[in-house]
Amino acid sequence: MKIACFLYHKFTSADLINPITVWQFVPGVQFEFIAARKGPVETDTGLTYIATHSYEDATPDPDVVFVPGGAKPTFDALSDPALLDAVARLGHKAKWVTSVCTGSLVLGAAGLLQGYRSACHWYPREMLKKFGAIPSDDRVVFDRNRASGGGVTAGMDFALQLAGKWGGDAAGRLIELMIEYAPEPPYNTGRPELADAETLAAARQFLVTEFDETVVDQAAARLKASSRGKSAVPA
Amino acid sequence: MKIACFLYHKFTSADLINPITVWQFVPGVQFEFIAARKGPVETDTGLTYIATHSYEDATPDPDVVFVPGGAKPTFDALSDPALLDAVARLGHKAKWVTSVCTGSLVLGAAGLLQGYRSACHWYPREMLKKFGAIPSDDRVVFDRNRASGGGVTAGMDFALQLAGKWGGDAAGRLIELMIEYAPEPPYNTGRPELADAETLAAARQFLVTEFDETVVDQAAARLKASSRGKSAVPA
Repeated sequence: MKIACFLYHKFTSADLINPITVWQFVPGVQFEFIAARKGPVETDTGLTYIATHSYEDATPDPDVVFVPGGAKPTFDALSDPALLDAVARLGHKAKWVTSVCTGSLVLGAAGLLQGYRSACHWYPREMLKKFGAIPSDDRVVFDRNRASGGGVTAGMDFALQLAGKWGGDAAGRLIELMIEYAPEPPYNTGRPELADAETLAAARQFLVTEFDETVVDQAAARLKASSRGKSAVPA
Repeated sequence: MKIACFLYHKFTSADLINPITVWQFVPGVQFEFIAARKGPVETDTGLTYIATHSYEDATPDPDVVFVPGGAKPTFDALSDPALLDAVARLGHKAKWVTSVCTGSLVLGAAGLLQGYRSACHWYPREMLKKFGAIPSDDRVVFDRNRASGGGVTAGMDFALQLAGKWGGDAAGRLIELMIEYAPEPPYNTGRPELADAETLAAARQFLVTEFDETVVDQAAARLKASSRGKSAVPA
């Protein structure tokens, strides 16, 4: 089972690492870590990862396409036609098209979410509509062969649910125990409706500078003008 | 605020990535990713990271030492004197000595936990006693300047609590919202006492081959014979 994981400059590494930590325990899983070029890709925290495949030498028909998100770096990625073309090309061949956090905006810009329900980070979630997707505030969203997790840490819940589908619920239960997933969030502020007004205002103040809606408008206009999403759209 | 993060062959990458994802939002934090040599370090999932510092050129007196865990690769690390010496050397100078999962066994083998309470992955937790530590089944454990998280995913709770101590509770609340940490474990099997008997038996069967207690006995004997833990032990 080949899982194509896309890496790009300063993406949110936890979006990728939590899912692959879970999925490595599903028998038969193999990862390809794909970027524009093989070699170093800097991530959000400053830690650099090594991409194992370029867009050109990635397996063209993986079982799963997975795209992690990020803040401004992901919005920058929405203007990267080579990335979007590669995600679209592999995504149209894959059995599962998946994302965590704002990775769903990349899938959207690649034309892979038209008419599909999807999760996203809470702040820019409604922007999914610009790509014809249907935003959901569920932490994990399945719609046919699309699967998505909400902001960053939702990748754990998302990945366990997919591991259960791929390897059976006994595998899901086993992995959850092996990684000791009995979380105890210390602040209980992990969703906008849980957070106090001061915390929410501080988050909005930070995130508004990261998530520029005009970038999404431009990506949506380019998608409309391109052939990228065409195979998913009835004429 | 310098945080020394130790990397070693096939360590559990999620143990590191979740904490640094949280801590990067604390103002003034800088990470050093330290291994025997600068350059590539393969992690548990097969993804390779780049160490930015060798043991020799790491800042000798960081504010924080952090050691991630793993399964057999961490037990292999208990027989690596260069790693243990580097962890001991920086740990004795650091304001905080911290770990996630079986990273606490590395701290123990480095002589840094004698007389300290510590968390660990549930399976090999009791083995901490061999290094003079006091195992705790709390998900996050603080004892003076030692802080530790339990198995893998406990790193998120651990890191948020430390972020609150370092940056104030308002920062902790903000980070928890930014990373949308409102977890929904799908199986509720994330601790031995939560899991059904079949899941627990399957986990034990897998983990017994990873965690060889004789390796810890040998590491404890070497610690006793070495000068490594001496500065923490009254004559």
